Amino acid sequence: MHYQTINVTLPNQHYPIYIGSDLLSKDDYLKPHIHGNQVMIVTQKLIANLYLEKLLQALKNYHCDVVIIPTGERHKTLKSFNKIIDNLLAKGHERSTTLIALGGGMVGDVTGFAAACYQRSVNYIQIPTTLIAQVDAAIGGKTGVNHSAGKNLIGAFHHPQCVIADIALLASLPQREFVAGLAEVIKCSLIKDKNFFSWLEDKQRELIAKESNALLEMITRTISIKAQIVSQDDREQKNIRHLLNFGHTAGHALEALSQYQLLHGEAVAIGIRIACMLSVDRGWLTEQDYQRIYDLLSAYQLSLPLIKGFKLKKFLDFLSHDKKNFNQRLRFVLLKEIGQAELTDTVTEADLIKIISRLEDGR
Amino acid sequence: MHYQTINVTLPNQHYPIYIGSDLLSKDDYLKPHIHGNQVMIVTQKLIANLYLEKLLQALKNYHCDVVIIPTGERHKTLKSFNKIIDNLLAKGHERSTTLIALGGGMVGDVTGFAAACYQRSVNYIQIPTTLIAQVDAAIGGKTGVNHSAGKNLIGAFHHPQCVIADIALLASLPQREFVAGLAEVIKCSLIKDKNFFSWLEDKQRELIAKESNALLEMITRTISIKAQIVSQDDREQKNIRHLLNFGHTAGHALEALSQYQLLHGEAVAIGIRIACMLSVDRGWLTEQDYQRIYDLLSAYQLSLPLIKGFKLKKFLDFLSHDKKNFNQRLRFVLLKEIGQAELTDTVTEADLIKIISRLEDGR
Repeated sequence: MHYQTINVTLPNQHYPIYIGSDLLSKDDYLKPHIHGNQVMIVTQKLIANLYLEKLLQALKNYHCDVVIIPTGERHKTLKSFNKIIDNLLAKGHERSTTLIALGGGMVGDVTGFAAACYQRSVNYIQIPTTLIAQVDAAIGGKTGVNHSAGKNLIGAFHHPQCVIADIALLASLPQREFVAGLAEVIKCSLIKDKNFFSWLEDKQRELIAKESNALLEMITRTISIKAQIVSQDDREQKNIRHLLNFGHTAGHALEALSQYQLLHGEAVAIGIRIACMLSVDRGWLTEQDYQRIYDLLSAYQLSLPLIKGFKLKKFLDFLSHDKKNFNQRLRFVLLKEIGQAELTDTVTEADLIKIISRLEDGR
Repeated sequence: MHYQTINVTLPNQHYPIYIGSDLLSKDDYLKPHIHGNQVMIVTQKLIANLYLEKLLQALKNYHCDVVIIPTGERHKTLKSFNKIIDNLLAKGHERSTTLIALGGGMVGDVTGFAAACYQRSVNYIQIPTTLIAQVDAAIGGKTGVNHSAGKNLIGAFHHPQCVIADIALLASLPQREFVAGLAEVIKCSLIKDKNFFSWLEDKQRELIAKESNALLEMITRTISIKAQIVSQDDREQKNIRHLLNFGHTAGHALEALSQYQLLHGEAVAIGIRIACMLSVDRGWLTEQDYQRIYDLLSAYQLSLPLIKGFKLKKFLDFLSHDKKNFNQRLRFVLLKEIGQAELTDTVTEADLIKIISRLEDGR
């Protein structure tokens, strides 16, 4: 069977990411990563309807329990976290248990955080069911929940035993969510891999049609960029992993200001444009390359306008609370050129205001 | 000035434990361990009345905020954790902030857990104000909160930047709490250091009078045993750190069944006796050594009876949920002799029932 393995290598741990089609129904991928005989599957109702039976079948030799958590970013809270913990305790799960996150990024983040904290950490496995979770959220050990003051403010670094990126699961994904996931793909190409960016320009038709070979190659290339960065700086301490926040400084703010009406990837797509415009302004990125980036985003329906009812003051306030700030300065990742990014704390509010006003004018 | 330093050495981190008298008023100990300019002190009302002013004085060059959490083991919950997180966010604390836990084990555990999870981990410092926290809870990076199903079921391993064990803070400690702390001291001698056990037999008068040289030596020797064990097995993965659970398997159950009317150390003292009786029963510990241990516990008023209204079935039920069990077997640490402990999963319910009935008869 056709599948790829990419390894994440950390100081005290390494784990594989399996990428292929219809991996879920084979227990070969799961078995080596489950120690002990207890498994707790965390998922959501719609996903359970589609895939739970298949997964339970693959796990028929284990003692499996299932907990269903509510759907939507607004439920990525300590309440959902508690629901998982309560179920683990009620069903007598021991330290040797394995949690399995079957779902999108929200399921993966809250399940990973529950695994990090249950009895001071148990194992877990990621089976992401959305494009954005397969190429981004499920990779890299960032887990957590939101606080009313902002996203992911409570969490832990806790890496899974393995990740299973099964493109068969993407068949059921709504097109809007699929497209939003492409923003993280484009982001990875922009910060690290010029050739991959060109490839994305060439393969627009195949990718929008979710043609399976193109999809597999796209996901593999994106994951390999992320896995490489995470392997170099898994705790975000060396200013390497920060590069993955390209498009996210403004993106997080817009996502919050839209009250999560914008999908994460959509907000990141706007954030990418803002970061690119800032990059052009300081003479790093050429106008011509900016146009290529804009055209690629447009081709994937990701050249979105600023959110309705955008309020500049709220946007700036939010940024000043963003956890990527350090010693009260804004931190942005900008592009030196396509395929090369750099972290900077030299962006001022004035720079931002200028860019925003251009975006508001639809330029 | 007379003080000792003991280092905890971990795979990716090492940190000092300073032990001395009146260290709190010197900023020399704190300064090298605070990076950034923000500090959040977490403490409780009574402790704040006694020591907060002094600590704020030592930290006068930092931006300090204070959060007061309620007193008592029953408040070691996600609610207190949330109170700390809410305050950090409300006061705009960034990833470079440092939390300082000023209080007993409960304050240290919940503060450490908040530090572990706030923005996926920030630094913290332990300033334990009880004997049990100085020799046990503050050392070793175990952080967490309780769940209605049991103690410390939600938590993380997160080590502090440093620990300041200031014996001047023990002057205000109620005698009952001081004595309870001695149970952890005796435990450390029993599992690792025969000479230290003899020393504790010799120094009863000085220790009960909290004579400062004896106290300093006792705390230093106990911490050095714990630090050595933690340095060898900081994540409790090698069956070394488990030795510190000597007296805790039964102890945790008794503490919970007493609804926390028993102090942790008092419950551990009874647990130590149960573990010693089990050790004698399998021919590991001699009757004579058991008598020495019993006599030492008695001398420190720690040869306590089983709790009032003790229910055997509830006790056994609780043990079967204890997180130190593995693949459904009870795990006990027993003594081969004074100064040498071993983890075993061969203790049966029948063994326990026999011991308990002897304790119930007051033997």
